[in-house]
Amino acid sequence: MIKNTQVFLKETPKGKLLKSHFEIKNTSIKPPLIGEVLIEIEYISIDAANRAWMQGRTYREQILPGNLMAGYAIGKVIDSKSELFKIGDYVEGDLGWQNYAIKNEKEIEKSNIISTINLHMSVLGITGRTAYIGMKLANLKKEDTVLISAAAGAVGNVAGQIAKIHGCRVIGLTGSEIKSKWLVEELGFDGAINYKSGNLVKDLRKLCPNKVDVYFDNVGGEIFESILFGMNNHGRIICCGALSLYDQLPPKSGPRGVPGIIVTKRLSLKGFIVMDFDHQKEEAIKQLQKWINENKLIVSEDIVEGLEAAPSALIGLLNGENKGKRMVKI
Amino acid sequence: MIKNTQVFLKETPKGKLLKSHFEIKNTSIKPPLIGEVLIEIEYISIDAANRAWMQGRTYREQILPGNLMAGYAIGKVIDSKSELFKIGDYVEGDLGWQNYAIKNEKEIEKSNIISTINLHMSVLGITGRTAYIGMKLANLKKEDTVLISAAAGAVGNVAGQIAKIHGCRVIGLTGSEIKSKWLVEELGFDGAINYKSGNLVKDLRKLCPNKVDVYFDNVGGEIFESILFGMNNHGRIICCGALSLYDQLPPKSGPRGVPGIIVTKRLSLKGFIVMDFDHQKEEAIKQLQKWINENKLIVSEDIVEGLEAAPSALIGLLNGENKGKRMVKI
Repeated sequence: MIKNTQVFLKETPKGKLLKSHFEIKNTSIKPPLIGEVLIEIEYISIDAANRAWMQGRTYREQILPGNLMAGYAIGKVIDSKSELFKIGDYVEGDLGWQNYAIKNEKEIEKSNIISTINLHMSVLGITGRTAYIGMKLANLKKEDTVLISAAAGAVGNVAGQIAKIHGCRVIGLTGSEIKSKWLVEELGFDGAINYKSGNLVKDLRKLCPNKVDVYFDNVGGEIFESILFGMNNHGRIICCGALSLYDQLPPKSGPRGVPGIIVTKRLSLKGFIVMDFDHQKEEAIKQLQKWINENKLIVSEDIVEGLEAAPSALIGLLNGENKGKRMVKI
Repeated sequence: MIKNTQVFLKETPKGKLLKSHFEIKNTSIKPPLIGEVLIEIEYISIDAANRAWMQGRTYREQILPGNLMAGYAIGKVIDSKSELFKIGDYVEGDLGWQNYAIKNEKEIEKSNIISTINLHMSVLGITGRTAYIGMKLANLKKEDTVLISAAAGAVGNVAGQIAKIHGCRVIGLTGSEIKSKWLVEELGFDGAINYKSGNLVKDLRKLCPNKVDVYFDNVGGEIFESILFGMNNHGRIICCGALSLYDQLPPKSGPRGVPGIIVTKRLSLKGFIVMDFDHQKEEAIKQLQKWINENKLIVSEDIVEGLEAAPSALIGLLNGENKGKRMVKI
């Protein structure tokens, strides 16, 4: 029996997520049964989606009080009773917030490691691939004005850089002057707006004089509404997430202009989840790695040490404290 | 000089549209100048969009107090100073609410008359073609559950019949038991819901046990919100209009679930305006006429007599009193 540490959800948050909603327990883990593998987790992905899963059923079951905290992770097989996986293989999936995981072979997939493990959690991982697929769904055309919300986040910063590679004018929305500066000076965005400055509509008009052709939305809420009114005719909105709505009770109303503006401006909105595009996974990883090699895509990671730091890492992410991909190194 | 009668907008309605918002005047009309034609109007289309145009700028300028009431219409050229149109030609465009119109040749287009004139205002006209294009954008697949709002209206009844022709399960939403019965018994819908009965969510669940694959939305508002939550994963929403929001001040909030549900259910929303699809006009008219000839598409028209009846015809339409395409015969 191996000693394990696990993080459980203790209570469903009603408002903002707090450390007291979690409970960390020392447990032990039994050897794998037939069809199972034992995994030593190396990196756990910290995502806004972790919080959304506590709100109710989404594309997966709700995380309920008493459940092991769910989370995407990558790790090494250290014992195997499966014919599909051997010791030393890297695997990924919802391995949960713990040091070791026992998983049935059907619940995980092999990681095709072509770079460092952390890169497979960031730009080559789910968030980088989300950005890649999102920008592909946007049908980018040269000189499109592309607006990215949560632009300094794991998905947003990569999406913005991809749009730049396609020759678009790229503007990022983020929550601080420091992150705005970083987007423009380090990542090459054409402009950035600190939405907390209170001048969103004015700043949008200034930085997007030809209005917005593509809006890559990670936040929903009031920002979504403001941008809807700033869209160009025939604009495309790629709906990737609704970060602003996760760390609270579900909102009582939605954005004005839906569906009226969608009709008059002839907009397209497309929601997507990267897991539906597994058939494009290899293509995405190959292209992203190529852009990294060509110095066209800057990798930014925000690595936190130790499982015990996972709750505060998620709380901080929901408060916008990260730049780039946040993950926990076990 | 020919005597004319014209309907003007007297006042911008703040809430529900009333007859007192209009003013009917007897005027006279001068002969056409070079490049102009004189048109004797035969049918004026009555559309929910007429009311939307009073709310503000849409895809066209707002109709302001003092303006001639705008409206799509069809008529015969009775005098021409244009080389493009000769006496006897039928033409259509925004001819306005009046008996006669002087129009520049650039403001109108020739009607390719292949049936009775009224049919070119209904199923072969803008509303029929709107239904045709909308159903084309929906990418209908056999056995899709297709839900149509304002299903007894000019666009909705044709859209529903087209979806039936494609082998879909078609459910209509409408505002009375009589219209519900008409949709099922006369037009062959698989089911209909009177949304005023107060059981929308329950009725939806009963009639759409496999949820909704395609929602053709003509109404927006609370109905839009309810249906959003009843959509199937990967569902498509075709946004054609927002009838429920036209006859009032612009709403203070929009539907819940935007954009959260769009992401988790991976929905597509597509707004459109039929004028963007003029290149498919001949194709649409040909196909619609073919379906009529094959008795697959039932034509339903609601013809009101005389220009003076136009204001109350529009008010009635906004209150849901019509079945099929409402138009005014001059």
